[in-house]
Amino acid sequence: MRLATLRRGGRDGTLVAVSRDGARVAPVAGYARLQVALDDWDAAQGALTAAAQAAESGEAVQPDDFAAPLPRAWQWLDGSAFANHGALMQLAFGHAPIETDLPLMYQGMSHAFIAPTADVPLPSEADGIDFEGEFGVITGDVPMGCSADEALAHVRLVVLINDWSLRAIAIPEMKTGFGWVQAKPACSVAPFAVTPDALGDAWRDGRVHLPLTVEVDGKWFGSPNGAAMGYGFHELIAHAARTRSLPAGTIIGSGTVSNAEHETVGSTCLSERRAIEMIAHGAPKTPFLSFGSRVAMRAGEGASPFGAIDQLVVKG
Amino acid sequence: MRLATLRRGGRDGTLVAVSRDGARVAPVAGYARLQVALDDWDAAQGALTAAAQAAESGEAVQPDDFAAPLPRAWQWLDGSAFANHGALMQLAFGHAPIETDLPLMYQGMSHAFIAPTADVPLPSEADGIDFEGEFGVITGDVPMGCSADEALAHVRLVVLINDWSLRAIAIPEMKTGFGWVQAKPACSVAPFAVTPDALGDAWRDGRVHLPLTVEVDGKWFGSPNGAAMGYGFHELIAHAARTRSLPAGTIIGSGTVSNAEHETVGSTCLSERRAIEMIAHGAPKTPFLSFGSRVAMRAGEGASPFGAIDQLVVKG
Repeated sequence: MRLATLRRGGRDGTLVAVSRDGARVAPVAGYARLQVALDDWDAAQGALTAAAQAAESGEAVQPDDFAAPLPRAWQWLDGSAFANHGALMQLAFGHAPIETDLPLMYQGMSHAFIAPTADVPLPSEADGIDFEGEFGVITGDVPMGCSADEALAHVRLVVLINDWSLRAIAIPEMKTGFGWVQAKPACSVAPFAVTPDALGDAWRDGRVHLPLTVEVDGKWFGSPNGAAMGYGFHELIAHAARTRSLPAGTIIGSGTVSNAEHETVGSTCLSERRAIEMIAHGAPKTPFLSFGSRVAMRAGEGASPFGAIDQLVVKG
Repeated sequence: MRLATLRRGGRDGTLVAVSRDGARVAPVAGYARLQVALDDWDAAQGALTAAAQAAESGEAVQPDDFAAPLPRAWQWLDGSAFANHGALMQLAFGHAPIETDLPLMYQGMSHAFIAPTADVPLPSEADGIDFEGEFGVITGDVPMGCSADEALAHVRLVVLINDWSLRAIAIPEMKTGFGWVQAKPACSVAPFAVTPDALGDAWRDGRVHLPLTVEVDGKWFGSPNGAAMGYGFHELIAHAARTRSLPAGTIIGSGTVSNAEHETVGSTCLSERRAIEMIAHGAPKTPFLSFGSRVAMRAGEGASPFGAIDQLVVKG
């Protein structure tokens, strides 16, 4: 089953189920918004299943009709679970290894997620505008102290995220130890939130076994595979829930998808490519984005189960 | 005017205005929840004023009737604006000064704020359970790029916060540069959210010019004054809004209230007292909290305008 949110219907939009071809939708009786269905997930299953069937002959929609699946959420916790990405950044910038035996994770802004084809307003090109292609999961209610084994059952939906990042601010903020505020504005999310079972074999070990393909200004930039996560989403959920309970609708991110074979599969953020260039040539040559840059993301070899992100960066 | 939220009425409670003596309340016609009034602040003024008048002869209430003013919020951004606190921690632990010319700020969990007299469930005494007494403001909608001068007009309410902190986790998380997730569980908030004008002379320069008094197990622990903030709340709001807009209901914290005269006025967190002990004696002697510890906070010389926090730490 795939769920989405239409932009119509106010700030939180309107929940719909999506047809197999992604072109048609149907509303969910009794559940006007995705958060409401997440708060009451088991009881909502009948209505969601009926809506998925109705979607096959439902209303035809266009990409611009979609909001992010959760236009705002109570919590966004983003990991950095691909060891290859961390190793490249460390090598390029010569900083000490991050000392931890635990998953890396920060809390980011969750009061707004940008629609998949909406413009992305940012204040300044001088901030070093970058994207990060990530997979994410939307959880149900997770009790404090939940183990990794138990956590997998709390994954309700899987999503594709562009975690917009401002690199000129990121390193100074990181040095404070307080994490990122200015360096992490709102993320964008692909239109379709997919139940784990609908991903079939591509969902196993708490990981999305699919390539995440990024294009910049219409040109291929990278397509590393989500299978290489050092920690699975179940382990990220357990980490997040160590000292707090997680409310239904919590979104947990994988961090930038990155593979050791980056020479052939490319990267999902400019910063990693710049790090590779710095290691190879002593200096980065790929610039950060400009206003007017277009960034697109999708997943899988054929039709993207999550649909596509396709956006312009604009002056905010 | 002072507003509060009664625990009754579901997860988000019921908005009420509070009498001058803090013992009576009245509902706000047309605004069942504080978030709804914040989303529509100007239009709500008539109903809020009427409710404040009605509260003088309204329903008698007890401390246990109150939730946090916002039982959950879309965003919680906590500063660390008292330079004295940072200097003491740095001296005690011998780490390098934090390199920044900007306010320190992290994004914390905002999906649950604990009621002022509710028990505080935490998983382990070994985590180094500590409190942090802070002032905070609740904003209206703040546009991206808002200046500090403009920001003061977006302060809707002022609150008193206990930012619970787990110190054994805090330093390792800080070293990752990703900020705190496990080290910062839910905060507690005193019952009354106060409009800036109702604080009179105690609200000026974007600061709360009142002592914040902490008691631990019934014994005075400290009462430093909020006036010593190195950055005012208007500057913290402008910092937060540099690359994002802030939704109405954003809560911005001052960080641990701390004064240079700590020998006489004490501290508002155990960690700072332990740092002072370490500097004086080479080792801390004040232990962190245990299950069963009681922590109370209030502000001002007489009746606390924010009411009081008074809570037990319990095994979660």
